[in-house]
Amino acid sequence: MFHIGRLSTVDLEEEITPEEDIVRSRPKEIPHNEKLLSLKFESLDYDNSENQLFLEEERRMSHMGFRCLEITRWVICGLIGFLTGLIACMIDIAVEKLAGYKYLAVKQNIEKYTELGGLSISLILWAVLNSAFVMLGSLAVAFLEPIAAGSGIPQIKCFLNGVKIPRVVRLKTLVIKVFGVICSVAGGLAVGKEGPMIHSGAVVAAGVSQGRSTSLKKDFKIFEYFRRDTEKRDFVSAGAAAGVSAAFGAPVGGVLFSLEEGASFWNQLLTWRIFFASMVSTFTLNFFLSIYHGKPGQLSSPGLINFGRFDSDVSSVFIVFRGVLGALFNIINYWLTIFRIRYIHRPCLQVMEAMLVAAVTATVSFAMIYFSNDCQPLGQDNTEEYPLQLFCADGEYNSMATAFFNTPERSVRSLFHNPPGTYNPVTLGVFTLAYFALAVWTYGLTVSAGVFIPSLLIGAAWGRLFGILLCIVLLTCAAAQLGGIVRMTLSLTVILVEATGNVTYGFPIMLVLMTAKIVGDYFIEGLYDVHIKLQSVPFLHWDAPPTSHWLTAREVMSSPVTCFNRVEKVGRIVDVLSNTSTNHNGFPVVSDTTENDEPGKICGLILRSQLIVLLKHKVFVERASSRLSQRKLQLKDFRDAYPRFPPIQSIHVSQDERECMMDLTEFMNPTPYTVPQRYTSSIISHCWQILKDFFKLFIIIDQYYICHFFMFISSSFTFRLSFCINIF
Amino acid sequence: MFHIGRLSTVDLEEEITPEEDIVRSRPKEIPHNEKLLSLKFESLDYDNSENQLFLEEERRMSHMGFRCLEITRWVICGLIGFLTGLIACMIDIAVEKLAGYKYLAVKQNIEKYTELGGLSISLILWAVLNSAFVMLGSLAVAFLEPIAAGSGIPQIKCFLNGVKIPRVVRLKTLVIKVFGVICSVAGGLAVGKEGPMIHSGAVVAAGVSQGRSTSLKKDFKIFEYFRRDTEKRDFVSAGAAAGVSAAFGAPVGGVLFSLEEGASFWNQLLTWRIFFASMVSTFTLNFFLSIYHGKPGQLSSPGLINFGRFDSDVSSVFIVFRGVLGALFNIINYWLTIFRIRYIHRPCLQVMEAMLVAAVTATVSFAMIYFSNDCQPLGQDNTEEYPLQLFCADGEYNSMATAFFNTPERSVRSLFHNPPGTYNPVTLGVFTLAYFALAVWTYGLTVSAGVFIPSLLIGAAWGRLFGILLCIVLLTCAAAQLGGIVRMTLSLTVILVEATGNVTYGFPIMLVLMTAKIVGDYFIEGLYDVHIKLQSVPFLHWDAPPTSHWLTAREVMSSPVTCFNRVEKVGRIVDVLSNTSTNHNGFPVVSDTTENDEPGKICGLILRSQLIVLLKHKVFVERASSRLSQRKLQLKDFRDAYPRFPPIQSIHVSQDERECMMDLTEFMNPTPYTVPQRYTSSIISHCWQILKDFFKLFIIIDQYYICHFFMFISSSFTFRLSFCINIF
Repeated sequence: MFHIGRLSTVDLEEEITPEEDIVRSRPKEIPHNEKLLSLKFESLDYDNSENQLFLEEERRMSHMGFRCLEITRWVICGLIGFLTGLIACMIDIAVEKLAGYKYLAVKQNIEKYTELGGLSISLILWAVLNSAFVMLGSLAVAFLEPIAAGSGIPQIKCFLNGVKIPRVVRLKTLVIKVFGVICSVAGGLAVGKEGPMIHSGAVVAAGVSQGRSTSLKKDFKIFEYFRRDTEKRDFVSAGAAAGVSAAFGAPVGGVLFSLEEGASFWNQLLTWRIFFASMVSTFTLNFFLSIYHGKPGQLSSPGLINFGRFDSDVSSVFIVFRGVLGALFNIINYWLTIFRIRYIHRPCLQVMEAMLVAAVTATVSFAMIYFSNDCQPLGQDNTEEYPLQLFCADGEYNSMATAFFNTPERSVRSLFHNPPGTYNPVTLGVFTLAYFALAVWTYGLTVSAGVFIPSLLIGAAWGRLFGILLCIVLLTCAAAQLGGIVRMTLSLTVILVEATGNVTYGFPIMLVLMTAKIVGDYFIEGLYDVHIKLQSVPFLHWDAPPTSHWLTAREVMSSPVTCFNRVEKVGRIVDVLSNTSTNHNGFPVVSDTTENDEPGKICGLILRSQLIVLLKHKVFVERASSRLSQRKLQLKDFRDAYPRFPPIQSIHVSQDERECMMDLTEFMNPTPYTVPQRYTSSIISHCWQILKDFFKLFIIIDQYYICHFFMFISSSFTFRLSFCINIF
Repeated sequence: MFHIGRLSTVDLEEEITPEEDIVRSRPKEIPHNEKLLSLKFESLDYDNSENQLFLEEERRMSHMGFRCLEITRWVICGLIGFLTGLIACMIDIAVEKLAGYKYLAVKQNIEKYTELGGLSISLILWAVLNSAFVMLGSLAVAFLEPIAAGSGIPQIKCFLNGVKIPRVVRLKTLVIKVFGVICSVAGGLAVGKEGPMIHSGAVVAAGVSQGRSTSLKKDFKIFEYFRRDTEKRDFVSAGAAAGVSAAFGAPVGGVLFSLEEGASFWNQLLTWRIFFASMVSTFTLNFFLSIYHGKPGQLSSPGLINFGRFDSDVSSVFIVFRGVLGALFNIINYWLTIFRIRYIHRPCLQVMEAMLVAAVTATVSFAMIYFSNDCQPLGQDNTEEYPLQLFCADGEYNSMATAFFNTPERSVRSLFHNPPGTYNPVTLGVFTLAYFALAVWTYGLTVSAGVFIPSLLIGAAWGRLFGILLCIVLLTCAAAQLGGIVRMTLSLTVILVEATGNVTYGFPIMLVLMTAKIVGDYFIEGLYDVHIKLQSVPFLHWDAPPTSHWLTAREVMSSPVTCFNRVEKVGRIVDVLSNTSTNHNGFPVVSDTTENDEPGKICGLILRSQLIVLLKHKVFVERASSRLSQRKLQLKDFRDAYPRFPPIQSIHVSQDERECMMDLTEFMNPTPYTVPQRYTSSIISHCWQILKDFFKLFIIIDQYYICHFFMFISSSFTFRLSFCINIF
């Protein structure tokens, strides 16, 4: 009978020396996404710690109790949908109002100066207005909550994948996000508001499901059962779905988005709950919007982004080079983002860049409006809400101005619906190019921004440009552009179909999206994955890299194993937790020689967070005394501490307390997942979804391994457990 | 160091006596679906046996090789979609033709006898015609391939769930199914053809993906890599999706169907492939149908079941009692099916019942047509293809006759699209009741039949009956009826939306479906689950029964463990395999004392099928001689034997061969899944999807356990393994 530490090292020396290990395990090629991975990310614990306390609670719970829990879940999902719908409604109205004011101010000014010939003043006014809006937004984002920048979809994707991005689902983030997106859309940037909606939905879900707000120090004492990562995750995916469904009025699309982009964990029952949340969200939004527009109860307007109803016939087209353009977009944006990471990391710089973009956007558009005076007759069925006359004769309006002056989604609609010949090719060509450039430049700014609408706009403009005037073709162009950029097929199809309210486009859209995806994937992966990679998030993909299929867990294990005894000295626990080289989220608990059980046999798993709670409540036993003396800790104590556990440094342990012992038996998870050391990555990738909770444990081994064997990170820890088993 | 057998029993006696075991593990209530479970079902091996041979192959394969495999998968999915589309097209055309002939014959006869007043002759003719069709169909089904009866959806659901239903994906089944559904639809039964389409798609997939037909003894020597259950499963779910998409022209709905009903195993990459298959299938069907209808290239007709385009406004309604009606349908059908199982098990009886139903259907409809002469003017836009004049004045037709005479989906269409007032309430009321009764009676007959269309028809009729004439309301009634019966929400919504070609109905349909599902679930589960239960299939549900959460694997384990040594005597293997009490599909392989390793330590898992192949090829080593003497077995040998492995009885092993040894090392799976004995069901249900491959292993313990701890069946075996580990 040996001690684990020694045995494991011995075993290592005997069986695999590091050299041959590396030789054996070096892959034929290192997948691209394994170049750099940040160590600053923790993992969420997507695994219930089924310790004694938990099991007792489960035992006490009746069949009725479980049914009540299920009902509560439905209620919460309903709440999530409702609140998300409200937020969407709020954003929509705010943007409308602001854009309206801006339009009026500039219009009057232009009309005033058109004859005086001092249009530069109008330009300045416009630029200043835009910059002002954008400045507000980006100030808030840059200084108050940097995580609120961008669309938020990559962050949510990571969250659902099991990576804890700090502060991503906090109330503050939500507020800043909403404020930011209102500013940036009103500021005339080339952005949409669907990404932020999705993020908002997720935050709402994460908040509501916990029945309290840690930020506001308010605890409603409800939903306490759901205060763990596993439950939270499910609600967050429901929230994301509700966001999509509010943004596009596409409930089914929302569910599919959660399924395709987000949820790495899926369950049939989850589908229905998420579906419910999406439905409620769309319904709420439409209901309140209809009231706001003065025709209550008439729920025809589907979602924020309404393309209106298409009724033309279907005619399917293939647009392959869309994928190429999408890839181009991503590549440029990729380098741009790298540049930003290198040089523009100071908040003030970021704000200035954002304002610069806003000013440039205004200038460019103004210039183009100025130089291209293609006048179109003002349709009697006034489709343009904001026609700009400029130098045009009365009863006419400047179409370029229209294209630029409106909020993106209104431009999309006008592109889709205006009668043929509304725009002349030159106008469109220049517009498309300029807008493409601006969109690329904009995405990744320190403002809350979505990329759906700009891509749709660019695509639609391309479609118009190519003189194909069926709106179905426009739609497919748009879809293709979007598909080329974000690379979703199924959910995107449904979203677009639902948003256009006409199924007949489904088929061509599918074909185009599929093509765009395949073509685009050939060059570079989707925009969100690009950004996830650029933030060097340890993101777990669906499968292990094929070339690593035959590598076994042993080849990537790290040693020696850091474990605790079933009854451990407080001092040692504190030391291990404070030691930066063993900054794990969970530790194997092994039976020690004092018990009749064999020494060093794995008997459970204890989480860092649990240990911290135990230390905080000083659940110590004197070395000699019986266990009765210690205060009984409830599950509630752990749930109250969730999710923001204090760092170990903040916990003071006196010198004589260090001499006490801590009994981990009833707090540890007696049934951790284990994998034998022979496991190969393909097997582990089968079950990584249930294993990936502890990948932080693997961080201690060297970069190369972390990069290449990321698929193992989840299992490396559990491997150590089974290692403890196997050596006896 | 002990021997496993003894130790395990000892351990059992010591720690849990059967009594307290049962006491501890008896649930508060036994879920309904655990009353009876048949032992005659095997499980599919949804787990790659990663033995040395396999790993070597993987090592040899380059990154390019894996990419080629991926491309091949796409190609196969394309093929599956194409063939499924063709079959759908064939069925559609055949039914059209037959129904046309029948119509003409009966019409002429009726016209001839209307004035002579000998309508009874027409009735007889009609009844005879119908019975004849149905007889053909049910003869084929009852005597040639009983598994082809019914819609086939439950069987596919089971297959994808991991239960091997014998002969469910064979070529013969496909032929009989197609023939049967043509007959039963042409025979005027209250059935639809979408269920059979789904089944057909699945069979096509299972066949194509293997690159050979075992029935036809034809091997194309392609796709050999896919000759295992894991790969086959993925293609089968693609096939099912293609079937849905061909039946309803709903590609997205198809994918969702696979996701919601079928695939217990899901993967992102799978989604896209399945999506592709569905697209191709719809496209193929529409393309060929458009050619058949003489307007090639015009792909407006979406799928077999075409409700035409709705263009009315949306107005959402709630129909709760729909769910009740659906539940009623299921309950009646439940008892009916039990009655059938008890008394009508002889094929000839089944055929006679089918004919009886056909005759009764004809008689009832005829009688109703006869007694209710509500005449409607023949619309100028002749929506009725088959108007029956009967006693009506010229330029009028008998609407009841129309409702009954057409094939169900045409009736649905006429119900949806005919101008208000086409049918008078009495007619509709009687029709609805009669049709409801007939539909209930029909489903479960020994004919190939689907339940979608009848339910839609009943629902639509109810809608009409209630005087609500917006087709949206009809649609929701229909949806509700259907939802109440089959209990799918997400996929059904999308299917209906795609089939009607109008998204605006999505929301009310969703609401209604959700309600119908919730209400219906309160009484009895969905029709398919009912039938799965009635066939007493060991179906694994998404979660463990909540009351069993705290039960550990130890409490349901069976002992002693049946294991083989790494080098085992051929005689013992043959004995174990032939022994009916150990009729397992897989066996733990433990290291024996002769090796330096500790005795009895688990070192792998060998499948029954593998052992059989080994025995067939006589891969024996003389007790003394080296391993070089034995013939080298390739993966190919195993793949050729797949999927129909001979029974052990068919393999002759001579007496002196029994004395030989067999070395299992390179064939066993060295990395089986294991669970510690403390595992509780909730943990296991987390990972049952990867564990459920071996549940046959659990069959040996007594009924009660099998029933109640079905969630454990998958893990019981692996539990024994870890048990072998833990006792050392």
